Amino acid sequence: MPAEKAPGLVTSHETDRDWWRGAVIYQIYPRSFQDTNNDGIGDLRGITRRLPYVASLGVDAIWVSPFFKSPMDDFGYDVSDYRAVDPMFGTLADFDAMIAEAHRLGLKVMIDQVLSHTSDQHHWFRHSRMDKTNRYADWYVWADPKDDGTPPNNWLSIFGGSAWEWDTNRRQYYLHNFLKSQPDLNFHNPDVQEALLADVRFWLDRGVDGFRLDTVNFYFHSTGLENNPPLAPELRNATIAPDVNPYNHQDHLYDKSQPENLAFLERFRALLDEYPAAAAVGEVGDAQRGLQIVADYTTGSDRMHMCYSFDFLSSTRLTAERVREVVQEFEDAAPTGWCCWAFSNHDVVRHGSRWADHVVDRNGFLKMNATLILTLRGSVCLYQGEELGLTEAVLDFEDLQDPYGIQFWPTFKGRDGCRTPMVWSHNEPNAGFSEGKPWLPVPYEHLTSTADLQAEHDDSILQHYRRMLAFRERHQVFAKGSIAFADAPDNVLMFVREHQGTRMLVVINMSDRPRSVELDDKGWQAVENSPHGDVPREGDTLELAPFGAFFATMEA
Amino acid sequence: MPAEKAPGLVTSHETDRDWWRGAVIYQIYPRSFQDTNNDGIGDLRGITRRLPYVASLGVDAIWVSPFFKSPMDDFGYDVSDYRAVDPMFGTLADFDAMIAEAHRLGLKVMIDQVLSHTSDQHHWFRHSRMDKTNRYADWYVWADPKDDGTPPNNWLSIFGGSAWEWDTNRRQYYLHNFLKSQPDLNFHNPDVQEALLADVRFWLDRGVDGFRLDTVNFYFHSTGLENNPPLAPELRNATIAPDVNPYNHQDHLYDKSQPENLAFLERFRALLDEYPAAAAVGEVGDAQRGLQIVADYTTGSDRMHMCYSFDFLSSTRLTAERVREVVQEFEDAAPTGWCCWAFSNHDVVRHGSRWADHVVDRNGFLKMNATLILTLRGSVCLYQGEELGLTEAVLDFEDLQDPYGIQFWPTFKGRDGCRTPMVWSHNEPNAGFSEGKPWLPVPYEHLTSTADLQAEHDDSILQHYRRMLAFRERHQVFAKGSIAFADAPDNVLMFVREHQGTRMLVVINMSDRPRSVELDDKGWQAVENSPHGDVPREGDTLELAPFGAFFATMEA
Ligand SMILES: [Ca+2]
Ligand SMILES: [Ca+2]
Repeated sequence: MPAEKAPGLVTSHETDRDWWRGAVIYQIYPRSFQDTNNDGIGDLRGITRRLPYVASLGVDAIWVSPFFKSPMDDFGYDVSDYRAVDPMFGTLADFDAMIAEAHRLGLKVMIDQVLSHTSDQHHWFRHSRMDKTNRYADWYVWADPKDDGTPPNNWLSIFGGSAWEWDTNRRQYYLHNFLKSQPDLNFHNPDVQEALLADVRFWLDRGVDGFRLDTVNFYFHSTGLENNPPLAPELRNATIAPDVNPYNHQDHLYDKSQPENLAFLERFRALLDEYPAAAAVGEVGDAQRGLQIVADYTTGSDRMHMCYSFDFLSSTRLTAERVREVVQEFEDAAPTGWCCWAFSNHDVVRHGSRWADHVVDRNGFLKMNATLILTLRGSVCLYQGEELGLTEAVLDFEDLQDPYGIQFWPTFKGRDGCRTPMVWSHNEPNAGFSEGKPWLPVPYEHLTSTADLQAEHDDSILQHYRRMLAFRERHQVFAKGSIAFADAPDNVLMFVREHQGTRMLVVINMSDRPRSVELDDKGWQAVENSPHGDVPREGDTLELAPFGAFFATMEA
Repeated sequence: MPAEKAPGLVTSHETDRDWWRGAVIYQIYPRSFQDTNNDGIGDLRGITRRLPYVASLGVDAIWVSPFFKSPMDDFGYDVSDYRAVDPMFGTLADFDAMIAEAHRLGLKVMIDQVLSHTSDQHHWFRHSRMDKTNRYADWYVWADPKDDGTPPNNWLSIFGGSAWEWDTNRRQYYLHNFLKSQPDLNFHNPDVQEALLADVRFWLDRGVDGFRLDTVNFYFHSTGLENNPPLAPELRNATIAPDVNPYNHQDHLYDKSQPENLAFLERFRALLDEYPAAAAVGEVGDAQRGLQIVADYTTGSDRMHMCYSFDFLSSTRLTAERVREVVQEFEDAAPTGWCCWAFSNHDVVRHGSRWADHVVDRNGFLKMNATLILTLRGSVCLYQGEELGLTEAVLDFEDLQDPYGIQFWPTFKGRDGCRTPMVWSHNEPNAGFSEGKPWLPVPYEHLTSTADLQAEHDDSILQHYRRMLAFRERHQVFAKGSIAFADAPDNVLMFVREHQGTRMLVVINMSDRPRSVELDDKGWQAVENSPHGDVPREGDTLELAPFGAFFATMEA
């Protein structure tokens, strides 16, 4: 493996308030990263143990999915105590050790904050449901039934069925956009905001460098509880929910994405700005206006630092035309906003399968994907195993753990297929993840993609990620520069990044065929030591190999 | 214990097509009656073993709750194969042995038929949900979503939430009046009726004497799928669903109790009439018009033999006024119909608690209840343990098994409290039910009410039931006679039964105070050997003890 980052970098990172802009963030799903006590479940000590590997990739930060106290109905996205580490994952001391090791290696640490809802086991909800007059009575979204006993409106849970669950104590319904054991907090109540911000401060004081905010556009609902209008079939899409989910049949005007959220995000940002260099990335889930919301949340410097939408997390085929369209749409909507792009995460089918199952040269295609995401304008989230080119695991119904998959089986198989254990070494039990029985099986087909095997082969996907990350690090224009697209042949993406007088041309052949590309200017100088090697060039004409890429610079 | 019934009775029963009229039926809940293989779950061999006890009570028949193949989501009321015995309960050979032993003891055998819905594991449903064109596509109630993706109408499941569940294969909703794993069969499809009747015939050919039909008024829905109208709060009642259940907020005009059911019941009766003496009792669950439906279903001789409604299964306090009102209402609605009365069963809080928790002399009260139900006009269902005066078990949430209780906890604790194991002997493990860990705990407070202890005490509730059943057997007027109520002092119930020239006066003091009652006629001759002993009488004036009763005859 390459050497760890030089310790000298730590200092520069710590003083750079703008470190997040263009940063590459490696997402760790703790349950599946590394188990150290052989209960089959990854833990914080396991993360700490594997951090040198993460640093060796050349990323800037880690985002750790929830490790807080939780009944684990939604695998930690149902928090019952925002300030405690779930015993399954370790202790606060383990967390402190993890953060110290990350900082020693020059890695920032971002943690997940699931503020939109709590677990129904959180003491706030246990109180709230007792009656209509307790201190926490208004901390969740309660509503009387309609005259016929049915829920107050037509809102649907993403995880299936009505978004309203009956409570026998209060004889009212409460709102849950996700599982019924994930009641939605009432952000219209200022006490709720105060309490959450105090919990966020707890972690800032403990040394975290930032946050990933789960479902950041779900914080507020419309207090009028208006019905969402139906959405015509031709307008529906499966960006944030599978095609078979009737959630997609509504235009979600009232159950989320309310304007009141902007003021809360400003409060949240003001808290972060009390600290030297804390940053946040928000998850925006909206199938109709995701990029516009990202623009609203990230424009200026007083809300989110950055957000990601689901545009590249859906199954819509990745083409040059599609990439240009999505990125340009965001640039137009938010010239001063900031996106964080992701192709895979713990909620969607791995793009190693989602986009690549039809591709003959899968490795070439996935390397091209890496080149693409690491050269676009924006920050980047990489999801553990993405750097190995892992495919979606095919699980039996009996192996399923995800309630979402159990609900919509078999046409939607849930999220377990992207949550199987990380594969470290080809000759250890369970690929080095655990000596116990893993909570999800290690798929047989991943055993040839382990990190140790790929580290030994220079043409592996893993080594390509490392080279591209180093390349990005050498050329600051990738992290901070503007972007301008140019026309190019079919399924070739061409754009220029520009930053402080440096211009970088990027030409990516997203097709599986060779492509000839005419450059508009003889002045482009090919960058040396390109991770894609030298590209044959006759005057202005490049001869790009399938999935090949070309980089050139020009001083302004 | 008293001797078994004389074998000679068997023959007379077998030839009496009218045996069910006025019969006393002992309900056995197999999971909780007697375990023989120590897996903590009662079984068919356990029933067979305990049948001599049942016969010793003096009842006419047993009704065995479902023992069919089932995933047991609703403890057997979700059948996946109508013709198979679930391995948990035994084999068809065990069933045959049970029926042979019952018949040897002079007991009729009625089994439960759950025809309104199947388990979602029944092969009919597994096929039906595959697509819209398979052979079973129309065997269940499928409907498209509304434009906004929500269910087609406002129908609610008794077990909580919408009565419609989304299916991802068909992208349609299916109807379930109970659990979502209990899809409702589409009785409008004649093939469904044929298939069910063939399954019913299977058991008739195997020798059963009759059936209890689960939720007999739920077979048909309105094909218009009209919304049920809301029900004004003052009209709501908790007869068939707990007070906290929003199911009670609707007037169930369209989701059940449709007129098409009468024709199906006639088909069903025609099948039974092919056999020498088969009879059926239907369960009618309707909070607004239960007695009217019972009248409709039992009037004449071509539908149900008898039905029971929930009027005496609710928590409405049992008073003389209430009894007279309910029984008279039914007599007026259906002079030729036939009711089956029950105070307890496997679905409701045991009346030993439901009505008796406020009573100081609980034993006296429960004996009076036995006297009452065994002297009213109608047949009778006794529920296992009722003859011991068992109270509702108080269970911890952790002990709950019933999904209905888990759903509506803590304000409605479900049905587990009436389903704890039968208590046979005070000095055996788990009161003789099982040497393994019972599926529900044996409540400590039941250990002083075991059958063996009560059999030794002449003044026990058990011995009172035996005496009353023998009394009823001696006086055929109780089984077959008409009924006419007379005015009586506060909380005293007075009525005359009359049959083939015999008139029997019954006076029951339902209050916990002594009552003086004037008789209207000096001709009433006190019956000798009354289970309530001799009642002091001065001329026309009876001096009834608290919970006392008086019986007198007069030849017409
Ligand atoms: Ca572990
Ligand atoms: Ca057993």
